[in-house]
Amino acid sequence: MNFCSNCGARVEYKVPPGDTLPRYVCPACGTIHYQNPKLVVGCIPEWEDRVLLCRRAIEPRYGYWTLPAGFMENGETTFEAALRETMEEARARVELGPLYTVYNLPHVNQVYMMFRARLLDLDFRPGEESLEVKLFGEPEVPWNELAFRTIHATLRNYFADRGRGEFPLHVGTIEPPAKN
Amino acid sequence: MNFCSNCGARVEYKVPPGDTLPRYVCPACGTIHYQNPKLVVGCIPEWEDRVLLCRRAIEPRYGYWTLPAGFMENGETTFEAALRETMEEARARVELGPLYTVYNLPHVNQVYMMFRARLLDLDFRPGEESLEVKLFGEPEVPWNELAFRTIHATLRNYFADRGRGEFPLHVGTIEPPAKN
Ligand SMILES: [Zn+2]
Ligand SMILES: [Zn+2]
Repeated sequence: MNFCSNCGARVEYKVPPGDTLPRYVCPACGTIHYQNPKLVVGCIPEWEDRVLLCRRAIEPRYGYWTLPAGFMENGETTFEAALRETMEEARARVELGPLYTVYNLPHVNQVYMMFRARLLDLDFRPGEESLEVKLFGEPEVPWNELAFRTIHATLRNYFADRGRGEFPLHVGTIEPPAKN
Repeated sequence: MNFCSNCGARVEYKVPPGDTLPRYVCPACGTIHYQNPKLVVGCIPEWEDRVLLCRRAIEPRYGYWTLPAGFMENGETTFEAALRETMEEARARVELGPLYTVYNLPHVNQVYMMFRARLLDLDFRPGEESLEVKLFGEPEVPWNELAFRTIHATLRNYFADRGRGEFPLHVGTIEPPAKN
């Protein structure tokens, strides 16, 4: 951030009076520009013993597999966000089930929320942001070609929980990948 | 939003190519300024059969009672946000329990996440943003002086669940107050 989105003046990065953290502050109009984590919302579309994955047609992680999920928009609910992303990325219709994971990714200022979901029909196909959309049983999941650590954790928990027949909420933190 | 925070040019509000919603777009540098919901994170600090509420020393809803909660910051987890807000508003130390509510407030572009929590000692006092901090049993809760509908819903569910001895996760949407 270089300029004030309110008045166009150049911002300063400093701790405002009474605050504890540095913020982008406008010396001209006084606006403090807070920056907050974004919610990424999606689902695990289930069809019998398989789940629907999308191969990404966009960066980051072009060509890698993921669950349908994306940034929640202003004016919508988490439910609407999950349904919209599933439609956009996989042209798939689902009925949402319970909230299944809440993962913090503090190193990228994101919180992931994934719902369980029941695929309503097999009439899915890649949306604009996907190269390919496909159902995978547990043995076929491309574990080494998953796009994000949070997707890996979600699917690992999902198949382990399915083995036990119980799907408790998972709330946790995903650490950044180790630097080589 | 009037100006591009990247280059300082005046932004336009229009649907970018390939998008479906209008965004603030910079004609000079091409930046699309997405706006996303904010997470408000807090907890229900429990001490025996009472819960800790804070009377707000700030707008909106100055003078009304609330649970400790506030905007999650970049770089922190939901757990850290809940602990920080509890310290800031009530100078209280808690041990967090399970995630208890996830409420959508699409009319104000917020998602509330509240954890159950165990107050570790009685050495609490009002922080900068509170006039007063106090423990309330169910009969004493100032139901008509609560700051927000989401706090009302959280406390109603909490006391009902405590009566049943079970605290399932509540995921839902809070409608805006009816206009008079
Ligand atoms: Zn300004
Ligand atoms: Zn620009």
